[in-house]
Amino acid sequence: MFKEIINNVKEKVSLVHNITNYVTVNDVANSLIAYGAAPIMADDPKEVEDITALCQGTNINIGTLNERTITSMVLAGQKANALKQPVLLDPVGIGASNLRTETAMTLIKKINFDVIRGNMSEMKAIALGTGGARGVDADAADAISQQNLSAVVELAVSLSERIGSVVAISGAIDVVAHGHQVAIVRNGSPLMAQITGSGCMLSALITATLAANPEKPFRATVTAFCVMGVAGEMAEARMTETDGNASYRNYLIDGIYNLNAAVLERRSNCEIREA
Amino acid sequence: MFKEIINNVKEKVSLVHNITNYVTVNDVANSLIAYGAAPIMADDPKEVEDITALCQGTNINIGTLNERTITSMVLAGQKANALKQPVLLDPVGIGASNLRTETAMTLIKKINFDVIRGNMSEMKAIALGTGGARGVDADAADAISQQNLSAVVELAVSLSERIGSVVAISGAIDVVAHGHQVAIVRNGSPLMAQITGSGCMLSALITATLAANPEKPFRATVTAFCVMGVAGEMAEARMTETDGNASYRNYLIDGIYNLNAAVLERRSNCEIREA
Amino acid sequence: MFKEIINNVKEKVSLVHNITNYVTVNDVANSLIAYGAAPIMADDPKEVEDITALCQGTNINIGTLNERTITSMVLAGQKANALKQPVLLDPVGIGASNLRTETAMTLIKKINFDVIRGNMSEMKAIALGTGGARGVDADAADAISQQNLSAVVELAVSLSERIGSVVAISGAIDVVAHGHQVAIVRNGSPLMAQITGSGCMLSALITATLAANPEKPFRATVTAFCVMGVAGEMAEARMTETDGNASYRNYLIDGIYNLNAAVLERRSNCEIREA
Repeated sequence: MFKEIINNVKEKVSLVHNITNYVTVNDVANSLIAYGAAPIMADDPKEVEDITALCQGTNINIGTLNERTITSMVLAGQKANALKQPVLLDPVGIGASNLRTETAMTLIKKINFDVIRGNMSEMKAIALGTGGARGVDADAADAISQQNLSAVVELAVSLSERIGSVVAISGAIDVVAHGHQVAIVRNGSPLMAQITGSGCMLSALITATLAANPEKPFRATVTAFCVMGVAGEMAEARMTETDGNASYRNYLIDGIYNLNAAVLERRSNCEIREA
Repeated sequence: MFKEIINNVKEKVSLVHNITNYVTVNDVANSLIAYGAAPIMADDPKEVEDITALCQGTNINIGTLNERTITSMVLAGQKANALKQPVLLDPVGIGASNLRTETAMTLIKKINFDVIRGNMSEMKAIALGTGGARGVDADAADAISQQNLSAVVELAVSLSERIGSVVAISGAIDVVAHGHQVAIVRNGSPLMAQITGSGCMLSALITATLAANPEKPFRATVTAFCVMGVAGEMAEARMTETDGNASYRNYLIDGIYNLNAAVLERRSNCEIREA
Repeated sequence: MFKEIINNVKEKVSLVHNITNYVTVNDVANSLIAYGAAPIMADDPKEVEDITALCQGTNINIGTLNERTITSMVLAGQKANALKQPVLLDPVGIGASNLRTETAMTLIKKINFDVIRGNMSEMKAIALGTGGARGVDADAADAISQQNLSAVVELAVSLSERIGSVVAISGAIDVVAHGHQVAIVRNGSPLMAQITGSGCMLSALITATLAANPEKPFRATVTAFCVMGVAGEMAEARMTETDGNASYRNYLIDGIYNLNAAVLERRSNCEIREA
């Protein structure tokens, strides 16, 4: 299922516009290059529409947002909509402050997102339109497991139906929903939660996959989850006794770099069902 | 002496708010995770009080400051004070510009810092309330050695008594003072000065240690210095002939990741005395 | 030819002021330290003149520019001019937006740059004073090869004569021109295009070399290109099967760290001619 989608990513070398936080921005750029896409970062209101117009996809991430960049997010997202170009929202830390919650809800109102990607705490905050998150990580109570999987699927499906976007929830088990179409991805490594930026990189990879496969938002999103998960496993396999999370970060991006459709086909653990 | 303090860090997984520079912010985030804490970065005046209220400690670093973030630093620091939550100041490059000197002095006036951590040049600038630093690194003339150690201790003690904070001066030999209580830490590696961010990471680790041990600001600070120093030694031991400072940076964060109370107890070289 | 220039870099430990993008800023800082220089980053209008006055060189990079930092770029560049201190322009992504094109052209009008460094697409945009670039990378059509080399040299020479700066164009083959003096550098690795920041780091290294050799802008620039190219080759030689672009980034900075004048003399592939 992945071959054509991945091949499109590698062949088209899509330019992806990222309005993103300054914490993980370098990893976002290098992971996009590793994947076969080309990153550009811009966040001033005076240029973001030009930049989005030049690109094939736009990735909006609200980590380290400020008044100036919020304006830019709205402008870039609306430009992407006007150009019928894929645009993704990563509502980092929604619920951690009123500013983040209001910004995410405003963006969802003003922009038609192809995909919204977050952890379970963030997605619950979107579903409720209000706070509750502990920070940028999912609450322990929001860990996705076999036990609460059906509830997570239900949330994803109902949110997707309400908003119209692909809803992508990452965790120990990942859940992607587009209306009643659902994917459960069981790839990845617990070490991915031991670095900053796994989620930001995943959102960027989804945007790149969408940019190269704009007609297939659900399949593209699921593919990016499998890429990230398998790369996370490849990275874990390289860990030595003295390695820690800094080495893991490098191995993870290296994994994305070395992944191809054949490896992905063999190693991905992805179940697609109708909810 | 470290066991309980380190165990508290690992068990509590404190959320640490960092208003910090965009140069080393990613290393700050990954080193906090390596240590067992959880980072969040926010710098807009409209959200920093919410974020600090959600956290257990706040780390204010004036590198790459600007007018907007200076406002945020004041708001976050005062919120931390109001909540009786630990707050640290890292006066990066104080003395390099009037803006940095004035900002650091204003922050010290408006906020009760639990800890102020800098190199010898930065701490002298604070003591004098005026410039003189060469940049973000300590002047060569300000290197801490056995020869000038008693003068450094004297500065640390008098500054701590005047301001009321733990005063933590990092260098080839580290000096921490809380009133007349003084610690001399002789861990670390000269390679730590060959990367950007050693100081920023240390400040973040101190904040995380304080967040998990708010009743013991002196012990917590000393523990974080030992953690950083021992991790620096572990990193140096991994260096191969072709490695340089980029690899060292990864090994340093990996070292923090792999450090536990037992290793720290065995390897730390820390002397505590009354000045 | 390199020995004296490199020795000056290592001995003087010049302080370099970088007003640069937040995507690659950490790599810029670590590569400057690897090279033997000392980085400082500041971008607020209220402090950039102080910081430039403290430094021996200023590196202006327009990636992730905004209204506030554009003001800072002008102030810092003019201060550098007033102090007769080397200043470099890296017109990242000029042509990708009107804001970038106008900013770069305004900076060139208001500041006398010692060196302007970009890829072929960026340099064509400067020559034309108008857009056309695909993003932050050179267009495929602008790849520098043996076939179009004479046209690239011609552009570099005519742009250098018009503006008065050293014009430095990086690509598979690098071209540096100062008036009719031209250097062709054939070092480097295709992997350098597989990470973000190769260009930003190169611009920083040029600035550091100029800072330590202000009387020799052409030789200093050529030396920095050879340093970056040879470090890129050393990094490629370290790559294993599981390594990807994240490891390459580390190896590249490590390479700069381990390079000395003797290695450079032996491995550099640089031809100097009159155009």
